[in-house]
This record gives sequence, C-alpha cells and structure tokens, in this order.
Amino acid sequence: MVEHVDIREVGLRDGLQNIATPMATGAKLDWILAEAAAGVREIEVCSFVPPKLLPQFADAQQVVRGALAIENLRVSALVPNLKGAERGAEAGVHQLNCVLSVSESHNQSNLRRSTAESVTDLKRIAAFLESLPADRRPRLACGLATSFGCSIEGPVPQVRVVALAGEVAAAGVDEIVLADTVGYGDPRAVRSLFALVTAEVGGVPVAAHFHDTRGLGVANVAAALDTGVRAFDASLCGLGGCPYAPGATGNVVTEDIVFLCEAMGFDTGIDIEALIETRKILKAGLPGEALLGQVARAGLPKKFSYAARQAA
Amino acid sequence: MVEHVDIREVGLRDGLQNIATPMATGAKLDWILAEAAAGVREIEVCSFVPPKLLPQFADAQQVVRGALAIENLRVSALVPNLKGAERGAEAGVHQLNCVLSVSESHNQSNLRRSTAESVTDLKRIAAFLESLPADRRPRLACGLATSFGCSIEGPVPQVRVVALAGEVAAAGVDEIVLADTVGYGDPRAVRSLFALVTAEVGGVPVAAHFHDTRGLGVANVAAALDTGVRAFDASLCGLGGCPYAPGATGNVVTEDIVFLCEAMGFDTGIDIEALIETRKILKAGLPGEALLGQVARAGLPKKFSYAARQAA
Repeated sequence: MVEHVDIREVGLRDGLQNIATPMATGAKLDWILAEAAAGVREIEVCSFVPPKLLPQFADAQQVVRGALAIENLRVSALVPNLKGAERGAEAGVHQLNCVLSVSESHNQSNLRRSTAESVTDLKRIAAFLESLPADRRPRLACGLATSFGCSIEGPVPQVRVVALAGEVAAAGVDEIVLADTVGYGDPRAVRSLFALVTAEVGGVPVAAHFHDTRGLGVANVAAALDTGVRAFDASLCGLGGCPYAPGATGNVVTEDIVFLCEAMGFDTGIDIEALIETRKILKAGLPGEALLGQVARAGLPKKFSYAARQAA
Repeated sequence: MVEHVDIREVGLRDGLQNIATPMATGAKLDWILAEAAAGVREIEVCSFVPPKLLPQFADAQQVVRGALAIENLRVSALVPNLKGAERGAEAGVHQLNCVLSVSESHNQSNLRRSTAESVTDLKRIAAFLESLPADRRPRLACGLATSFGCSIEGPVPQVRVVALAGEVAAAGVDEIVLADTVGYGDPRAVRSLFALVTAEVGGVPVAAHFHDTRGLGVANVAAALDTGVRAFDASLCGLGGCPYAPGATGNVVTEDIVFLCEAMGFDTGIDIEALIETRKILKAGLPGEALLGQVARAGLPKKFSYAARQAA
C-alpha cells in the first residue's frame, strides 16, 4: 500500500510576490493548467492583498476564475486579513490561507500588528466563514511563519510555536502549516517541532512550508516525512527570493520535492517530466528570473520508477 | 556529549578532475591551507593518475609536499591502480583512496577493466602497503562508485553493493566509502544500504560520498547521519560536474554540509565563516566556474551557535 503525499504549488503566490513585474494573467493560467495536467491537485493561485500594495496580484479574481474551471483542482489563495478573506470567499476559492508569525518582530514588520492581534483577526475570519452557507464556505488553513527562526529575532523557541499552534487550532482552522520562512530549520529541529505541534493540536492536520535559504530545504522535507507529515508547499523552479533581501531564496523546488517523495516510495500522483515541461512557461513569462531545480537539470534517473508503479 | 562528524574536502580531486584548465599549484596550496586553518582535518589533495591523462594533477607531488607541511591534517590522494599507489606512498600521503564501481559498465568505462579485476588490483595495493614499514604505510580507503545507481545501467541492486563491500573489507581496507556518483540515492535507500553494508563489513568504518545531481545530496547526508555515518566527503562550492556530461554536478557543498551537521548538533570543528572566506581562492583561481552553495549566499542564521558551544 503506497502512501500518498500532497505537494501543493505555491509559486504563483509565494514566488510571484517577490517579483515586481507582474506576470501576464494568461501565463499564470497556462502555468496553473499545466501543473494541474501534470497531476498537481492543490495550487495557491494568488494573494488577496490590496493591488496597490502588490500589483502582481491585481488580477487575482481573473486568475481564480480561470483556476476554478479546472476539474479536480483545489484552488487556494493567501488572505492577509478579514477584508482579503471576504474577497477570497466572494471569488469562490476552495481554501483561504492565512498567515501569522511566531516572531513578534516579523509579524510587526510583515503585517503591522502583534501576533496576538493576528490571532484575533484569524478568529474573525473563522467566524465570518462560519456565517457562510456550508456549500460556499472555503476551508481555512493557517501558516505559522518563522516557526524555526526569524531574521530579525534569530532563533524562535519551540515552546512559543507550540503555544501559538494550540491557539490557532482552537480558532477552528482546518490545517496548520509550519513555515520555515527564512531557512532556520534543520532536520533535527523539524522532527522535534512537528512532533510537539502535532501532539498539541488534537488532530488538526499539520503541513510543512520550507524555504531552501541555507540548503537544507530538501533535507527538512525528508525529516518531516519521517515524522508523518504528508502535505508540503513547494514552488516550481524554486521561484521566490526577494530582490531587496540578499540571500533570501524561494521555496523548495516542486520538481525536486516530487522526485524526493517518489524516490522514497510515496505516491504524489504527479508526473515529474510534465512538471519539467511546465518550466518553459516560467522561462517565457518571467524573463531574467533565476529558475532553480536539480532534477530539471539532470533529468530523471535511468529506469526511474514512480512509487505507485513500483508498488503495483 | 557532542558527537563529532568528519567532513573531508575532496574538491581538489573530485572537483578539479572535471575542470580542464589546471588550477595554479599556488592556488591549490592556498586552498588547502585556508581549509586546514578553518578546521578541516582531512583533504584529498590530488589524484595520482598519469599526467598525460589529467594534466590538472601534473603537480600532484608538489601539492602533496605542501600539504604534508601543514600540522594536524590528514593528506589523502586518489590512486587508480598499483602504480598510482606506489607514487602516492612514495610522496608520503597519509591515506590512499582507491575506487571501483559496483556497476560493471561504469567500472569498464571509468577504469577499463571489470569490477573483479579492480578487486584484484585492490588486493595488490593492500599487499604492497603491507610490504612497507609500518611508519611509512598509508591508510587505505576504498570507494564503491555507483552504489545507488549508474547512468549506464540504471538502478544498482543493493545485494551487489553489500557483496562487493564484503570483498573489499576482506581485502584489508581501513575504510569503505559508499559513493552516489551520479545522484541516484534517496534518504530511504541511504538508510537501508548503509545499514546493510555496515552489518556486512565487520567493524570497517563506512563513510559517505554524495553528489547533489538531483537535489537530494543534503537530505542523503542527513539520512546517513541517522544511520550512524560520521564521515562525509564534500567539495567547497560544490565544485565538480563534468563539462562533457550535461546535468552532471559536483559533490555536496562542504559549507552547507558543515552547516547541516552543526545545526543538527554534531561537532565538525570547522568554522563556517572561514570556509566561506576560502571561496575567494576558488573565485580567483578558477575563473568562470559556477560556485554553488546556499549558506555562503545567505550567511549564517542570526545568533547561530556551533554544536560544541551549544553543548558547553
């Protein structure tokens, strides 16, 4: 019996939010279509932030509309506050992704409010969702940014992450995502933190969101797989990094993470060669961007066998 | 009690052998000196192959002489056959590194003989070393190339690796190195193969040599650490890859692997910032080469603490 692992594409949000020049809406939709055709079943397609703040997401509604037309695809969107949640729900996304930071300094710098205020906001969003008819109510996920460390504060104590995860779970989310926003995690810390948080949140699924800032991203995914995590965010071509923050890097590379999972015997349902083909859309649509990824460079191993086929 | 992990630099051999233009002898010695000063205790400084075959190593004797003048440094050299072993022992290296491939096709293509003939060669080298006075006898290590797969044959059955490791151990080597020459390994395969081989070779230490061809190099190091492996080859700047083999890539990046180990609580005795400084020697001495490495790009995490200091 092959276990399934969910790989969720977040490049259209976490990747593009760091790229000043808006990608054409058509190219975004081509990207979503191509990944869905490759077998990706969940894509974070945009962020419902004010377009003045991030012109990259001015086309959020169009992108959502296009994505919702694709069968068997869970369409999610980042929402920074209640206003964003209302826009996201109105647009009809299947899932809203909230985010708050364990690090107070990062929460202040990123969201201009305290972490406690962000938790209050999250509760407001949860209440708003409760007020919607069940058939028009999106799932609610919440990411805990800087769960492993913060470039302002340095290390973040695990006890704070666990406490915040408990509060977030109590707010009624459907999923918690531990995020290593700036590459402070390592396999040992991943194992202990995921075990502690999972024990705290009473059955709420815990997913992982790793950046490869210091080269440990893939190793952290492997460590999280060891602890039973079965859902991972990733970004095609490792898109991301911030032009204003030297050394910042994107999420772990979707293609490489799918390869990791399949090589380790987990079924992702995703065709790696089709993912690699999808890179052409980014190459054309994001001229000048660095496109990372080792499997795309080297190709699959000779006689490579997907997990589901190995087991069959 | 902090456990120690040996990180051995192999960029001067495995990296440089893939670079056609010889690096200046002075730059090689600066590199060795700088890494030794950063705390690296074992460096593979050259290959004793015929200079006509690899002009990069025409200065092998000079490089060895310079390296031997450094205190507390184990100087090793690759030797492809008995002739090379004689040259290496004559030069006074502390350790000879032999290599043979589990994959017959790779052994033929790399060494122009069968794997069985390579084992016979290894036995000849071991006998030659036995004939030397004990105080002039180098240690003998043997790498098993393509232990996880081969770009000619594809997957390599673990049972063949285990059997060959047993033969190599019986030949009287002081260390066995399982090498993922072309990036076919994954954390699951690493765990099972190292456990099987360690059980087979009766106390002979088993080290790891990973390439990052498909992005799993660091994850494979972490998996090997889990199984108790405490010695790893790595290459500064991830140097390597072959200009004639698209997609080929170098060893795991020394700086990133030291960071992984220290972050996970293993003492390497190596100063990461001093290693990062050492990159300048490669930048100047190898113009045009791609210098990889994520920690060098991002810097250490804020308030980063080395394992030995954490424990103190």
